[in-house]
Amino acid sequence: MKISVKDGAGGKRMQHFLNDMVLSIFGPSTVGDIGLEQLDDGASFDKYVITTDGHTVKPIFFRGGNIGTLAACGTLNDVSVMGACPLLLTASFIIQAGFERDDLSKIMYSMKHSCDEVGAQIVAGDTKVVEDPIGIYITTTGVGKTWEGLISNIDGVRETRKYPTNFITDCGVQPGDSIIVSGTVGDHGISLLSERDGLSISGKLSSDVCPVWDIVRRALEVGGVTALKDPTRSGIAGALNEMAQKSNTGMLINESDIPIRPSIRAAADILGINYTDVANEGKVLIGVMKDKADSVLNAIKESPYGKDAAIIGHVTEEEKVFLSTKIGAKRLLDMPDGDPVPRVC
Amino acid sequence: MKISVKDGAGGKRMQHFLNDMVLSIFGPSTVGDIGLEQLDDGASFDKYVITTDGHTVKPIFFRGGNIGTLAACGTLNDVSVMGACPLLLTASFIIQAGFERDDLSKIMYSMKHSCDEVGAQIVAGDTKVVEDPIGIYITTTGVGKTWEGLISNIDGVRETRKYPTNFITDCGVQPGDSIIVSGTVGDHGISLLSERDGLSISGKLSSDVCPVWDIVRRALEVGGVTALKDPTRSGIAGALNEMAQKSNTGMLINESDIPIRPSIRAAADILGINYTDVANEGKVLIGVMKDKADSVLNAIKESPYGKDAAIIGHVTEEEKVFLSTKIGAKRLLDMPDGDPVPRVC
Repeated sequence: MKISVKDGAGGKRMQHFLNDMVLSIFGPSTVGDIGLEQLDDGASFDKYVITTDGHTVKPIFFRGGNIGTLAACGTLNDVSVMGACPLLLTASFIIQAGFERDDLSKIMYSMKHSCDEVGAQIVAGDTKVVEDPIGIYITTTGVGKTWEGLISNIDGVRETRKYPTNFITDCGVQPGDSIIVSGTVGDHGISLLSERDGLSISGKLSSDVCPVWDIVRRALEVGGVTALKDPTRSGIAGALNEMAQKSNTGMLINESDIPIRPSIRAAADILGINYTDVANEGKVLIGVMKDKADSVLNAIKESPYGKDAAIIGHVTEEEKVFLSTKIGAKRLLDMPDGDPVPRVC
Repeated sequence: MKISVKDGAGGKRMQHFLNDMVLSIFGPSTVGDIGLEQLDDGASFDKYVITTDGHTVKPIFFRGGNIGTLAACGTLNDVSVMGACPLLLTASFIIQAGFERDDLSKIMYSMKHSCDEVGAQIVAGDTKVVEDPIGIYITTTGVGKTWEGLISNIDGVRETRKYPTNFITDCGVQPGDSIIVSGTVGDHGISLLSERDGLSISGKLSSDVCPVWDIVRRALEVGGVTALKDPTRSGIAGALNEMAQKSNTGMLINESDIPIRPSIRAAADILGINYTDVANEGKVLIGVMKDKADSVLNAIKESPYGKDAAIIGHVTEEEKVFLSTKIGAKRLLDMPDGDPVPRVC
């Protein structure tokens, strides 16, 4: 049997791949509370979390960023959504011989800039130059540290949660919790696919790639946060389903409350792609206790990257994710089979 | 200007690339005592070290191992030669669509086996499936922890050394120190190149890829260790020159004391490649105070991977690395321009 693009594209196919191959061979890990088998955004050890991501996006430079911005933010964000303050990154570059040094320089400066935004540093790296026609791939690994502001704000919450960890997982929501998204949805995936297809659409489409730590930190400062996840591959549909499944809950999301740019909605319609199924690279989904939801929302809106944040729904008992549509109908928001836009990250 | 294969092949060209591009853009890091600017095998933070390496070897399966063995051991070894006990690995797979699942399974089992050998665990990962014709690339990142046996054995040594760290660097040797290599030299690079060229040579050529932590631990238990480095890309010639340059010393190496398999020597002669310039993947170079050298050597020889270990020379004041040849001549053992065998790791 052969590996397919969908095995690495988020969604159901990837979940099967992870269970059949990765977990069955590598087995559970016991280094920290959160390991491989939790399939969270990272793993924990001591007072740290660690997470890794390979980046193979094409085109390498796109509106709103480049593979360097993505490689830095993707991993800084995976650290952040564990409720950990990003501390350091390592970077492994695999570069095609003949790649322009000036382009590499731009990419590296973008990585440095994204790290600077959250106070993280690039501490180690590796470079391999190959003859395969790849352009450039970048794998980053990030380490984050327990954030001192977190402990007091998680104590009341975590007693009832799944893991007795000092970090925030993606599976801690309970019925009644509110769900917040930190900004507009679909920007990265739809923008990249439009660019790749040469779509001419009015309105500036642009990736949303940015670090979310400032948003996460503001939410944690308020308290009551029960789960965090960044809706990358397979979009908010994939991320909400994962959060719900792993928490043994369901969700009811109000379609009209999901923030989306008109230009992104128009492009998604033309492309025939659901904006809920594609990657976001600068957004975070936040599960929060209902009585804290408004305070968390207001705190996030003060962040430059969080001004479009919205409460989009709540957690339910029934173990499915439903979308309450604008015309009053209720339809299943299913886990996508796989990201319809391969290699946007 | 374009990136060349030699920019990523160890050696002088790579040193320039690192200084001109990586360090000038990413800048120094201040997270721990050992950061990017030390260009050591990894960086330190708190009581941990972290290191990363991308693996692009072709062929993917070779005599003595496969890309999985290499991806696990390469990073476990970079952690080990910081004097840290390997704790965990993360693994980022970039896989060509259509790759055989059975092959991926074998590769993953090899990674698991190498981790098991040193008691490390794979705690987090990522998979991207691409259409580029790459086969498979694997980037691993490793974290190691201060080894409790190290502290007492380093105290007398480190006072005079460059960094006040709880880890072992590659730049701590002083004139008079002995240099040990933990086994035969050139096996990985020469074996792979022979296989790639379809060379038919009597004697079984095989990569030496294996974890070196057991060897390092035995050496540290004896004490007096002043520097550690694994001679991967650019071989022992590259590694010895780096150790000497960074310690502001020289070395005198006795050619006849360098352990080498006759079959590897023969293959190197046929290929016209110097066995001192090619990658080893299961060896470590150890700088050790002279009065401890014999005890460290004996301790290493008890390890299954260390039975061919030898003292090959000593550290000198003159800031160059010389080879004392079998016929009594003394010639410069220069830093190679770049590994003559691209993509053997």
